[in-house]
Formats: sequence, C-alpha cells, structure tokens
Amino acid sequence: MSEHDVFLADCPARTTLDLVADTWSVVVVFGLGGGPQRYSDLRDRIGGISKKMLTQTLRKLERNDLVERRALATAPPGVEYRLTSLGQSLLGPVSALARWAEEHAEELADDDRA
Amino acid sequence: MSEHDVFLADCPARTTLDLVADTWSVVVVFGLGGGPQRYSDLRDRIGGISKKMLTQTLRKLERNDLVERRALATAPPGVEYRLTSLGQSLLGPVSALARWAEEHAEELADDDRA
Repeated sequence: MSEHDVFLADCPARTTLDLVADTWSVVVVFGLGGGPQRYSDLRDRIGGISKKMLTQTLRKLERNDLVERRALATAPPGVEYRLTSLGQSLLGPVSALARWAEEHAEELADDDRA
Repeated sequence: MSEHDVFLADCPARTTLDLVADTWSVVVVFGLGGGPQRYSDLRDRIGGISKKMLTQTLRKLERNDLVERRALATAPPGVEYRLTSLGQSLLGPVSALARWAEEHAEELADDDRA
C-alpha cells in the first residue's frame, strides 16, 4: 500500500498519473517495450505522431527518468531511446491499457460515438 | 491477439485508447471500481474535478458503453453511475496504472520536473 492517492488533487500520485495517462505517452512507452529504438524508427512506427509531439513526449519521459537517450556513434549521427528501470515498471500497466484498447476496439467502434 | 493496433493512426484501437488514456477517465473508472456511486459522492471523492469535467467524463464513458447511469427514486432525486461489463473489463488496466502512479509518485517527485 502506498500513502499516495490519485483521488487527491494535490497528491504527487495525481501529478504522476497526469504525466503518463495520455495517448502519446502510452504509445511511446509501449513502443519501447521491445527494446531500444532509434528516434527515426519510433517515428516510423507510431502512426500520426508529429516530430514535435514525439520530441516533446520523449523529453517529458526523459526528464522524469522513465526513458533514457543515448547518442549513437553512427554516420549520420543517430539517437536511441530506451526505458529506464522506472520506465520498465510502467510497461506492465501501459501494455495492459494498450492491449485492452486493441481487444475492445471493435465493441467501442460499434457504438455511436460523438 | 487482436487485428487492431494502437501504433496505427487510423485504427479503432487508437481511437479507443484516446478515449480512456486521460487522467479523468482513469480516475473516474478507478473510482467506480468499488461499485455504483452517486454523482455527488463521485464529485466529493475526486479532488480537483469540476462539475463540468465530471459530467463530460461521465457522458463520454456512458456514450461508449463503459458506464451506465441510473436515476434514483429518492427525494431529492439522485443519479447513480456504475461500470458496465465493458467498463469492468477496463478496470484491471486502469487500476494498474493508478496503483503504479501511487507506488512511484515519490520517485518521480524527487526529480526536477518542469
């Protein structure tokens, strides 16, 4: 049990949830679940994400120690991202949410969505 | 395995993920995990949510068959919300994410967050 509580507006748990409970963070962390990825490969893999949004999402995750960035000594120079151990701990919940979306997409698409 | 894929921009899985991967949806579904709740009790429990945001979130979840609304024959009249069976299927992933936030809040709060 944690002393933190997502139901409390000013609790660090709420701030932490805010940080990861958005589509791009979920998709990026899920996408790094298989191992390190180059920026360009991530961008190819994640349909519909702009360079700006991918960069912002990676920076946010990096700043919060969920992802680490490594410059590659390649020509041309490349950059690789991987999950930290904290990021790995988030992979389970995030994968469960992404898989739920994949498994139930059909049921939700049948509804009249506004 | 599902034929749907959250990495594809136009896939129903992405639309479905968009629907549930936000803080308020996570907190509301997590809050209904213990059973039906009156609107007023939900509002008391979820710190920092405005009436407008709670109503919008509940309507979105209701429209997508994740939550059902029931008028109560009380005086004054009340309204109760509960998870549907589809909503119950979302409870596992959402609870895992909320608990992760509670368990790791301390580590993330130690970082220099922007």
